[in-house]
Amino acid sequence: MKKVAIVDTTFARVDMGRYASDRLKSCGTGFTISRRTVPGIKDLPVAVRQSFQGGADLCMVVGMPGRAEYDKVCAHEASTGLILAGVLESKPVIECFVFEGEASDGKELETLAKRRAEEHAENAYAMLFRPQDLARKAATGQRQGFADAGAVRATR
Amino acid sequence: MKKVAIVDTTFARVDMGRYASDRLKSCGTGFTISRRTVPGIKDLPVAVRQSFQGGADLCMVVGMPGRAEYDKVCAHEASTGLILAGVLESKPVIECFVFEGEASDGKELETLAKRRAEEHAENAYAMLFRPQDLARKAATGQRQGFADAGAVRATR
Amino acid sequence: MKKVAIVDTTFARVDMGRYASDRLKSCGTGFTISRRTVPGIKDLPVAVRQSFQGGADLCMVVGMPGRAEYDKVCAHEASTGLILAGVLESKPVIECFVFEGEASDGKELETLAKRRAEEHAENAYAMLFRPQDLARKAATGQRQGFADAGAVRATR
Amino acid sequence: MKKVAIVDTTFARVDMGRYASDRLKSCGTGFTISRRTVPGIKDLPVAVRQSFQGGADLCMVVGMPGRAEYDKVCAHEASTGLILAGVLESKPVIECFVFEGEASDGKELETLAKRRAEEHAENAYAMLFRPQDLARKAATGQRQGFADAGAVRATR
Amino acid sequence: MKKVAIVDTTFARVDMGRYASDRLKSCGTGFTISRRTVPGIKDLPVAVRQSFQGGADLCMVVGMPGRAEYDKVCAHEASTGLILAGVLESKPVIECFVFEGEASDGKELETLAKRRAEEHAENAYAMLFRPQDLARKAATGQRQGFADAGAVRATR
Repeated sequence: MKKVAIVDTTFARVDMGRYASDRLKSCGTGFTISRRTVPGIKDLPVAVRQSFQGGADLCMVVGMPGRAEYDKVCAHEASTGLILAGVLESKPVIECFVFEGEASDGKELETLAKRRAEEHAENAYAMLFRPQDLARKAATGQRQGFADAGAVRATR
Repeated sequence: MKKVAIVDTTFARVDMGRYASDRLKSCGTGFTISRRTVPGIKDLPVAVRQSFQGGADLCMVVGMPGRAEYDKVCAHEASTGLILAGVLESKPVIECFVFEGEASDGKELETLAKRRAEEHAENAYAMLFRPQDLARKAATGQRQGFADAGAVRATR
Repeated sequence: MKKVAIVDTTFARVDMGRYASDRLKSCGTGFTISRRTVPGIKDLPVAVRQSFQGGADLCMVVGMPGRAEYDKVCAHEASTGLILAGVLESKPVIECFVFEGEASDGKELETLAKRRAEEHAENAYAMLFRPQDLARKAATGQRQGFADAGAVRATR
Repeated sequence: MKKVAIVDTTFARVDMGRYASDRLKSCGTGFTISRRTVPGIKDLPVAVRQSFQGGADLCMVVGMPGRAEYDKVCAHEASTGLILAGVLESKPVIECFVFEGEASDGKELETLAKRRAEEHAENAYAMLFRPQDLARKAATGQRQGFADAGAVRATR
Repeated sequence: MKKVAIVDTTFARVDMGRYASDRLKSCGTGFTISRRTVPGIKDLPVAVRQSFQGGADLCMVVGMPGRAEYDKVCAHEASTGLILAGVLESKPVIECFVFEGEASDGKELETLAKRRAEEHAENAYAMLFRPQDLARKAATGQRQGFADAGAVRATR
């Protein structure tokens, strides 16, 4: 039985943690999901390390940085810390961030965040149970939340 | 009995350490608070690690970077170090920074800093004693010091 | 028998992993290649550490950051994490990134990515088996994917 | 007997190491000072770690980055490394940097650097021997080298 | 017998490794020099850690980042990694980088790179054998490759 930890924030404005959890469950069985909420994205790295030390095999973190320049700095700090936590524990961290500025209104933001959380959840499942699915999609221009870019078709 | 360490700076211009401490005490019981002051925000990461090694279960740091571009760089360095210290110790660090440039005059700065310190203190309490409160607020657009952004209402 | 791990992403749009693998094989013998695919470049540092802990002597990672400003930030975070993973394990990581914005159309992107992956693969081989080849090319302005800059000819 | 290590650089243009050392000595007794010089600020993090491993209880580093954009990058790298060294050793590092561009001529630069070094030296002394002095100055808008900003007086 | 490791790159366009090595030898005796070449500056941090683990007492790395914005990012990543490697091993890393954009033509680039490599080599020697020489030059505005800035003469 694998253990997946999903960590979300009170700062986010769309319930990506639930979308991620629901999609994960629909992917298959063989794992349990633990949920946890921290205040903001800068609290995620410590929560990730604690989750790994508590037995998680993979952490999925969802967050929604704001529109301001400072929010981008926070996201950068959080990402750097998430990579640090993952490297120190040598276990995968699926980071799913949606920047508020990526969408032009609430509906678009909700749609984007839902879709990205679900597609990252599928990646999380594949990393644990079906690495061959990721290998099959290697270099195919996959995007999470937006339409896939696709593989390059060189105009020969 | 849990131990909370609050670390503030001589650089800050509003007594956020006191506001944080007062609010924490009003949240409940079951913890002790230690206070410590360092010169500036770049001294916080080491103070945090020392506090954890001295038995703290959670560190709350409060600081007030100035208006200059260089102050933003210092805040970035401090934040990166705080995440490092938290990840190495695997214990939560509640970072509460107010940038002087966020407010237009002293009164606004005082109000903002007080409110942010208090709301982060509530988060600190919840992280230690009431994680279910954070879970209940997941993805509800919480902000500290400003009005909450709220959850997105998709205009469907 | 040396072990080389090649890690690529589903995000990339050109199959650099295959180009790297093919070129590596054509360089010589004495090594095995393992392949693995992760979703994006920010997942590479953990995959690298896991590969080293699984016995790899060298990791080659290939990725293709997009055109947006945010993609550059992700690439920076990934690179920092790759260096961290390499330093912690004290084993070489050959990073081969092609930014989508480096090429003006699909054909150019394909050509550039193929060539860069192949030339980095040659470097990987040299690092493991023929360090003298690298020494011989010291300070000769080698470039991967573009024409070499060459050694400076001081106009004396 | 506490041990303070002061590390300065050959790059700097004002003898901040001497100013720091003189002021430290005038603050009180109960400590010894070791001095060391490295080429530039990027050499400070290793020197700090070595000093701690040699028994220092606190390191004070003084440096003077130049005016160019690149100098700011170097200062950022040095600061990040200093925080890393401090956190790994869990001992305080007092960083005293004066950017050449902070002053408009040599006289001003000398005055600023002297004063900042002296005031940081006082902080170093307080951190080791009189933490209550720092606590008393908490949130009073202390500045090193310039006039203090002071606590905010909210115009209520 | 001390051990100095010099690591250079195939990316550089001027043979700074040789200039560094020649100057080091002319400084004195009591040490051996090992040479190694990696593809680019981002490969230096791992090479440095490996050199230290192989017994080196000091590493000198020479590199030549290109003119593009991306090259500056790479240099920043490399520098951060070099500081990390030095701090983890607690041994000095002399970083000698010449940015191609620092010179206006090949002759100038060759002259600058040669001189900087030689002057950094002198620093490396001093760090190992004559720390008093560095102490004597403390705060004298030393520059490597360009004319020294000199100590500030306050116009009192």
